[in-house]
Amino acid sequence: MKFNIKSERLWNDMMEFGQIGRGEDGGVTRTSFDEADMEARGLFLKLLEKSGLNPGMDAAGNIFGEITGEDPELPVLLIGSHLDTVRSGGRFDGATGVLMAVEVLRTMQENGIKPARTVKIVSFTDEEGARFDYAFVGSMAATGSVAADELQRQLAAAMDGDGISYAEAMRNASHKGGHFSRINPDSLEQAQIDKAKIKAYLEVHIEQGKVLENKNLGVGIVSGITGGEWSDVTISGEAGHAGTIGMTERRDALTAAGECLLAIESIAKNSGGSVATVGKLEVKPGSSNVIPGRVDFTLDIRDISDERRNQTSIQIYDAIRDIVAGRGLTCEVTPVQSLSSMISSAMVTEAMKAAFQEVDYPTYSLPSGAAHDAMVMGNVCEVGMLFVRSKDGISHHPAEWSSQEDVALGCEILYRTVAGLL
Amino acid sequence: MKFNIKSERLWNDMMEFGQIGRGEDGGVTRTSFDEADMEARGLFLKLLEKSGLNPGMDAAGNIFGEITGEDPELPVLLIGSHLDTVRSGGRFDGATGVLMAVEVLRTMQENGIKPARTVKIVSFTDEEGARFDYAFVGSMAATGSVAADELQRQLAAAMDGDGISYAEAMRNASHKGGHFSRINPDSLEQAQIDKAKIKAYLEVHIEQGKVLENKNLGVGIVSGITGGEWSDVTISGEAGHAGTIGMTERRDALTAAGECLLAIESIAKNSGGSVATVGKLEVKPGSSNVIPGRVDFTLDIRDISDERRNQTSIQIYDAIRDIVAGRGLTCEVTPVQSLSSMISSAMVTEAMKAAFQEVDYPTYSLPSGAAHDAMVMGNVCEVGMLFVRSKDGISHHPAEWSSQEDVALGCEILYRTVAGLL
Repeated sequence: MKFNIKSERLWNDMMEFGQIGRGEDGGVTRTSFDEADMEARGLFLKLLEKSGLNPGMDAAGNIFGEITGEDPELPVLLIGSHLDTVRSGGRFDGATGVLMAVEVLRTMQENGIKPARTVKIVSFTDEEGARFDYAFVGSMAATGSVAADELQRQLAAAMDGDGISYAEAMRNASHKGGHFSRINPDSLEQAQIDKAKIKAYLEVHIEQGKVLENKNLGVGIVSGITGGEWSDVTISGEAGHAGTIGMTERRDALTAAGECLLAIESIAKNSGGSVATVGKLEVKPGSSNVIPGRVDFTLDIRDISDERRNQTSIQIYDAIRDIVAGRGLTCEVTPVQSLSSMISSAMVTEAMKAAFQEVDYPTYSLPSGAAHDAMVMGNVCEVGMLFVRSKDGISHHPAEWSSQEDVALGCEILYRTVAGLL
Repeated sequence: MKFNIKSERLWNDMMEFGQIGRGEDGGVTRTSFDEADMEARGLFLKLLEKSGLNPGMDAAGNIFGEITGEDPELPVLLIGSHLDTVRSGGRFDGATGVLMAVEVLRTMQENGIKPARTVKIVSFTDEEGARFDYAFVGSMAATGSVAADELQRQLAAAMDGDGISYAEAMRNASHKGGHFSRINPDSLEQAQIDKAKIKAYLEVHIEQGKVLENKNLGVGIVSGITGGEWSDVTISGEAGHAGTIGMTERRDALTAAGECLLAIESIAKNSGGSVATVGKLEVKPGSSNVIPGRVDFTLDIRDISDERRNQTSIQIYDAIRDIVAGRGLTCEVTPVQSLSSMISSAMVTEAMKAAFQEVDYPTYSLPSGAAHDAMVMGNVCEVGMLFVRSKDGISHHPAEWSSQEDVALGCEILYRTVAGLL
């Protein structure tokens, strides 16, 4: 089977972007508007320019490229993902989907395809939320899933570890000039896309799990995405000297957090499908000889069933409050974000299945446990996703890997899916 | 009762030093050889100079002042404590004892006392271990409690949060010139004091507990100090995506740490006297949507009975290993330090009791749950300590407080104790 897309060219782009923000451990760290993220954005704008794909940016920092359709009034086909990463993450999560979109449009140009509708690439700002613990900023701004004025308030309040607010980081980025001067945390309504003008959103992403590997398949169709709920928990006790305060007189915020960690794990295990994760936890004051007076941690709860997730969340919050009160401490739970589950578009799925048949590859559908920009886009338009096999299911880790062969197959299927939706 | 020492002068010194390294929350942060610690050292050298107390420094950065005795061959009387603090600690822990020593020697000069033996002030380097998680560096170097070459190795290996080694920080400090040029992490044997040349070591410290407050007493005699054992624990699991890996497939280092926290608490509670604290805990990679792959935490175990502490430690280490192995993870426990309990000197205690009688104040003895430089000094000489009442028993905290009246009483008793030992 002769592919339309050029596997080598796509792979070289991926490896080039994979060098940006790469640390000693081989992990890639590109968190929103940090130095590496800015470098990746700059390189991506150049790539779009070089490919004749008319680069642009919106107020939220989302980057676009496009082949303008013969009839610009027809609803556009949007293809994309994100270029940001978690701390010390991999080279494939996000960048794969963005660079495949570029490869698909380049191939369309080379094949002389002049589409009726505009085909647009998007690289969304901050899918991961690694720097400010606030994720999906670009897709939320584009869809208006969080109202622009509310999002503006949230971005003014969200802080990174150095006390820099999200809004401040965006303003700093805007000072870079050129396309970046469009970034404006106070005018996020400008980033909102008119729903009526989108035909569908397509995203290719690495699986970040072992389902495709276990099935011995390189690419699969995503049937839907599990919803999630994110919150911040603060437990306040009393700091004190580690040598002079007896075990029964302590109000240790960390041992209380320890009990919460076990309750969270146990409730999720017994929920019948929810997963719950504490990924970040900070102890204050944080000296070896001081009883911790305060602990802050993040809570990430996900489930394909919104109803069951809701039940799990309530149980977990109740358990935290009971544990903390039982120890004579206090706690505060601050909701950060919540996203409903997304069911994939039948129209897009049919186009994908046709593409699988064209390349003579077995179709296989699987749900996504990870949230993606596609989930947010699902609030306003038809959405479809493809997954590419991840070696050992490892993701958000330097060892994250997908083979060049699987990436090429995924991109060719994307190309043919797009062709079927023009 | 007319006091010899000048309460106002001492209090002003204490408040002046309390401004150095003071943060927005009112807490004082002077960790070894950081900017604030260097400023405090500079000010202390000036104070000794101004008071005619012949300032000096040794290879470990310990600062000395003295009134030279009529017979310099007689064993010296050493009085001191430390000027470093925990992060966001108080103004009294450490500085009180050092500045009282200055006040006592100034008063001796004013009263025309020319002692037969040399009376020496010492401000020990790094009692708290807040920056490098390695405490009692100055007193260990001075006593040779850890051999100079071994200590040199430890200081080369101990790192702060920015990856600067203890030895490097000392070398940087030595570049400040003057007395600082004596600092040398590679010649710590030069800091060792000849045991035969010390008559006794006296230290006044705030209590950091509520015993004196509950007894309605301003000052008490320390009967002994509980020993302690400090170690670092690393739990290694596997990082992974918070949405795609099921609860039963995870190797979450943080939930394992949570189980360890509860086991540590429970073992200490049931030990009959030991206290155990995890004061510092770090999660890696530390993103809200990534399952923690690694957790590092400190462990601080103390007991007045060395034997019982040993049993507690063994139980805790066994429990950690069992928990971690039961979850299919691995762990590493690295011993950092251990100090035996210290029983106060009968000779010094008798001199203290006489001083209490002179000022017509009831004598009361209590053990110290906190470790102090006096514990390390106990390895080589007779040691005695006085405690000054702490408001609400609060310590290692911005709210740490002792009244000017109690401080004056403690200093006068110290003055009279010293007079009795000349």
